[in-house]
Amino acid sequence: MGVVASRPQSKPDPASAAGVVLSVPTGDGEDVLGALVALVQGDFEACNRTIVARMDSPVALIPQVAAHIVAAGGKRLRPLLTLAVARMCGYQGGLRHVHLAACVEFIHTATLLHDDVVDESALRRGLASANAVFGNKASVLVGDFLLARAFQLMVADGSLKVLDILSCAAATIAEGEVLQLVTQNDLSTQEDRYLEVVRGKTAALFAAACEVGAVVAERPPADEQALREYGMNLGIAFQLVDDALDYAADQATLGKTVGDDFREGKITLPVLTAYQAGTAADRVFWKRTIEDSEQTEADLDHALKLMAACGAIQTTLDRAGGFAAAAKAALARFPASDLRAALMDVADYTVSRAR
Amino acid sequence: MGVVASRPQSKPDPASAAGVVLSVPTGDGEDVLGALVALVQGDFEACNRTIVARMDSPVALIPQVAAHIVAAGGKRLRPLLTLAVARMCGYQGGLRHVHLAACVEFIHTATLLHDDVVDESALRRGLASANAVFGNKASVLVGDFLLARAFQLMVADGSLKVLDILSCAAATIAEGEVLQLVTQNDLSTQEDRYLEVVRGKTAALFAAACEVGAVVAERPPADEQALREYGMNLGIAFQLVDDALDYAADQATLGKTVGDDFREGKITLPVLTAYQAGTAADRVFWKRTIEDSEQTEADLDHALKLMAACGAIQTTLDRAGGFAAAAKAALARFPASDLRAALMDVADYTVSRAR
Repeated sequence: MGVVASRPQSKPDPASAAGVVLSVPTGDGEDVLGALVALVQGDFEACNRTIVARMDSPVALIPQVAAHIVAAGGKRLRPLLTLAVARMCGYQGGLRHVHLAACVEFIHTATLLHDDVVDESALRRGLASANAVFGNKASVLVGDFLLARAFQLMVADGSLKVLDILSCAAATIAEGEVLQLVTQNDLSTQEDRYLEVVRGKTAALFAAACEVGAVVAERPPADEQALREYGMNLGIAFQLVDDALDYAADQATLGKTVGDDFREGKITLPVLTAYQAGTAADRVFWKRTIEDSEQTEADLDHALKLMAACGAIQTTLDRAGGFAAAAKAALARFPASDLRAALMDVADYTVSRAR
Repeated sequence: MGVVASRPQSKPDPASAAGVVLSVPTGDGEDVLGALVALVQGDFEACNRTIVARMDSPVALIPQVAAHIVAAGGKRLRPLLTLAVARMCGYQGGLRHVHLAACVEFIHTATLLHDDVVDESALRRGLASANAVFGNKASVLVGDFLLARAFQLMVADGSLKVLDILSCAAATIAEGEVLQLVTQNDLSTQEDRYLEVVRGKTAALFAAACEVGAVVAERPPADEQALREYGMNLGIAFQLVDDALDYAADQATLGKTVGDDFREGKITLPVLTAYQAGTAADRVFWKRTIEDSEQTEADLDHALKLMAACGAIQTTLDRAGGFAAAAKAALARFPASDLRAALMDVADYTVSRAR
């Protein structure tokens, strides 16, 4: 399709300014996720029902806020991974994978709600953020509720191993988010530290979502580990592409505001790449806009031009491609199947959605 | 001692304006908690070491923020309950009660951190709130970390029963906090709904802290239930007194700002009592100040006078006394011991700290 990125007012096209025209997940992309959903259709519907049923509370504001973000859609990529991995691993039991997939989505949703408070995001999936609609208070507290509810579901499932995986993931996510806060506005951040943030805030839950799928299917440790690696690498690729899209996406279609990360002074690979490749004058620009948070209307366009000059978006996407390849490689030990092929396609799609 | 409440500037003494002179926890009060600590001294020190050790993270900001609120002191009343109940129940095992007491404190601390964000409290335990010092972001995320860390500790403990109790408590706390948000500024709130808020936001964790102590000691269900009731009633008494103190405490000693609840339009028993007893003119006043949040400097004093006229503070303290008595009654089934006596004294102290 090749829909190009949107832009603020009538500024130069930021996508082409950044040197890469980024398409958005339409047609092919939706087919990839759609194909995965089709392979676990019944499980996916059961998971959605569990999510709706278990986010309920006698306190009516809770399902209202939760519905705003949970039911607003999103791709449900993380619970889908749990379901697909469990089935690929031959899980034939009852509904454990469905309930644990719902846990994964609740943990993710809690993170989104708390992230909205944190980042004062103006847009989330194209809708006003829960924070903007319901206020900071409700977002924090409903996030807490969903996190607690996720643990209640895990307790009902009864596996200490699963509880271990997901409680560790929850702690790692929080550490990653705090580390992101610490590196914010700090251009001396090194790439390995940035990747540590990405592993924590995003990839840890992808990894846990996949590992849990293997655990319910009672696979040997090496298989669990391989699926954990698949999820970890997929999650890193996913976040790197997100970070690229933040400088080059189509706002109306992606439901994100282009330049959010720039305005917040977030340290992401596109910025680090451009900063490190920059001239002395460029670095003055980056320090003013990112470190000192002094920005004018025209600065985003200039940032995009500097990124285009050094290929910062392409570099980021190339790195993402490497992680996607590693994700696919981790699946090699499993016998060929429709589900394995679909999980491999998801890894490709994670990167191709931005090309 | 009879230290009277502090007041804004040179206004009339709010404590006497409210018709009750409230003392603060000095001398006797500290002896009561001190006596309880002395009975579990080694456990208490081990618990404090666990708290410090387990709030650590390679992300340095996490222990910094956590230390601000955890190490800043507080009475550690909740973990103390877990330790004391476990020992009263004859627990002679290893360190399970110590680790679970640390979990209880982490859950409490996470709530405080998120409550700071929520309520924009100016003061917390006499120090600037973590929120004011580190910002909303850090408070939310470090709270998330501590909650996750609490679950990791529970998983390491390995009891699904304990996980069930504390994950249910965490969900109930969040529900109570959201319900408080819903009732805020709403004078039509009935007392039973107010008590539902109190049970959720405060008493549920007291109840769980006590129940967990019985569980590690492997007591029969009736004992677990009795200790849960002790904790629940104690927690309700504790919160009712807190709500009274908010209108009549000594700020310097208690570390709270008198009138915080009033300024936030929180619906507590002192307000409900005064509103329901009020004349038509009084109700106009309450509606303007609490429902419409339109307040002038002099309004707090007027509120205190209205409370004094109808004995709203005394009514609140009397209700608290009833719950404290119920807490003590729940202990009757256990054989007399130093620990049982100390836990009964805590119930008395919870109320007497305000007399």
